[in-house]
Amino acid sequence: MRGLHPVRGDRLPDTAGASGAPIALDAMGGDHAPGEVVAGAVQAVREHGVPIVLVGSPRPIHEALLRHDAAAEIPIVRAEETLAMDEGALASLRRPRSSIAVACHLVRRGDAAAVVSAGSTAGVVATGKLRLKGQPGVLRPAIAVALPTLPRPTVLLDAGANAEVKPEMMVQFAHLGAAYAETAFRVGEPRIGLLTIGSEPGKGNKLTKRAHELLSAAPGLDFAGNIEGHDLLTGVVDVVVTDGFTGNVTLKTLEGSVRYAFSELRRTIEESRTARLGGLLQRRRIRDLRGRLDPEAHGGAVLLGLNGTVVIAHGASHAAGISAACVLAAELAAQGVVPRIGERLGTAHRPHRLW
Amino acid sequence: MRGLHPVRGDRLPDTAGASGAPIALDAMGGDHAPGEVVAGAVQAVREHGVPIVLVGSPRPIHEALLRHDAAAEIPIVRAEETLAMDEGALASLRRPRSSIAVACHLVRRGDAAAVVSAGSTAGVVATGKLRLKGQPGVLRPAIAVALPTLPRPTVLLDAGANAEVKPEMMVQFAHLGAAYAETAFRVGEPRIGLLTIGSEPGKGNKLTKRAHELLSAAPGLDFAGNIEGHDLLTGVVDVVVTDGFTGNVTLKTLEGSVRYAFSELRRTIEESRTARLGGLLQRRRIRDLRGRLDPEAHGGAVLLGLNGTVVIAHGASHAAGISAACVLAAELAAQGVVPRIGERLGTAHRPHRLW
Repeated sequence: MRGLHPVRGDRLPDTAGASGAPIALDAMGGDHAPGEVVAGAVQAVREHGVPIVLVGSPRPIHEALLRHDAAAEIPIVRAEETLAMDEGALASLRRPRSSIAVACHLVRRGDAAAVVSAGSTAGVVATGKLRLKGQPGVLRPAIAVALPTLPRPTVLLDAGANAEVKPEMMVQFAHLGAAYAETAFRVGEPRIGLLTIGSEPGKGNKLTKRAHELLSAAPGLDFAGNIEGHDLLTGVVDVVVTDGFTGNVTLKTLEGSVRYAFSELRRTIEESRTARLGGLLQRRRIRDLRGRLDPEAHGGAVLLGLNGTVVIAHGASHAAGISAACVLAAELAAQGVVPRIGERLGTAHRPHRLW
Repeated sequence: MRGLHPVRGDRLPDTAGASGAPIALDAMGGDHAPGEVVAGAVQAVREHGVPIVLVGSPRPIHEALLRHDAAAEIPIVRAEETLAMDEGALASLRRPRSSIAVACHLVRRGDAAAVVSAGSTAGVVATGKLRLKGQPGVLRPAIAVALPTLPRPTVLLDAGANAEVKPEMMVQFAHLGAAYAETAFRVGEPRIGLLTIGSEPGKGNKLTKRAHELLSAAPGLDFAGNIEGHDLLTGVVDVVVTDGFTGNVTLKTLEGSVRYAFSELRRTIEESRTARLGGLLQRRRIRDLRGRLDPEAHGGAVLLGLNGTVVIAHGASHAAGISAACVLAAELAAQGVVPRIGERLGTAHRPHRLW
């Protein structure tokens, strides 16, 4: 593939060609980069067959690969700069050769199918917008997160890309989220819910009242009406639409409450010997439940609406979270979420690449 | 007391005089009125020594009192109309003699110390604003809810009275919440947190960025800075300030997630015999934990900023929830939350009543 510079080896590993274009993984983004990012890449390649290229500073990446005996399996693309975890939009403009910018560039050129990064959300969003640009017709890209509902996940967006939104953007978020549900979760006709403060149509603030009107009238959307905070984990809709401020506070509240409920439970159980005994008998099942509800298990947040798939893993991700993000990115790219968004927004054009 | 019309008996029960003015309890508000409301009143009187008057339609109230053999203990004040659960502000204007309006009237006249209702929140807020009016200097009253944090509850407001707010109102909300924490939970200098989408001061939407500036500069407030959704149940601050839309979505999300975590846990445990065995050994402790996290246990939401204490119990409250709301109302009135708000806002005047 044009543009890849493997640091070791004369030819690219077979996996890159056979399974489609690789995932461009930002090796330098995140609290545990590059060590855990590389470990996650190895896991994605070996356990899930997802082709990866690691983008960043070659030496530490190579050393990490050696620890897994994987230097021949995963190519490296050089990027000498890195955005720090607290750098945001302006820093992105100043660092055209940051690992995240180079990863986006690979997607734009067709040398990678998607970008994955555990770097700062603000930095990834700004770099993505600048380097990949919005799809035709997209007012603003949005961050979508899959909530661990049953029988299948619920997509929540915008989870934080846009702190201020206009009602028209909310209609687009519905289409972005529906495309995600269709491609990643095979939902035939995703049901859309609008997150607000009452079930009756007249309830809410100015933004949600107007968004309700627009969503009700929008063609191509199965709008199920208003939903409230306590409906989020019931699986009653497939996509939940909200503004980025409310979405981010809500998502963090969800994560914090579930974590709180489990830690209170553990504390309660450990306070008594009888209860502890009971705890031993359930340990495996509770661990499985915690795993299902663990944000790291779901592959992270997806930035939808750009000319390329971008997955943002939790900053604190370890190998498992990185691997899950790569698997999610590969699935979204393979299933064509970007063309699907184009179709939904009525601005689809024949893609000249299959991913 | 002037104005009370006991349906039975020639003199008022001693409890009304001895413990201070009674709580005016809207007997007709809520999903399980008047039966569960009356049961809750009986519980508050007998188990907590809180004097109550029941406001509403005399016949069904009296019949319910007879079932508890309590007709001589709790007076009734007649109000022939009732706001339906789905009626809101306009209905309040049309029904000057609704049970909630009459209850507010008792407080205004000094014949009751506080109002408690499980009726529709919109109806209670509208009636309260109309009949009790805002305290001098209060831009908007706010609904405050106590989150079950340890070692003591955290006050969250505005939990839904104002879907749109201005930054100046957020500063007032901080004072209202601080007064609640001081009076109900004896917190000496309540720490205030601003709910937003990032810990750094520059993060948030326009409203929260401006509110941050105002809160930082406001005298008489111990402003601890921004907090995020996952901090809500950590007890890191005493008061969390937000707008009514975000507050309501957040509160419902909290309630829904905790409920979800417990039901998932129960389901997980019941799927296996071994785990079930473990569950038997913990049943009591888990039940206690669920009780602590149960919204009904906390006495409901308090409408702060009016010339009188108003507590809104959950619409689905049973007797225990009603009783807890009455206990909370009595405590707030006795501890003087209304005068304390006046002092904080710099508009305190010597109250001519002690409640």
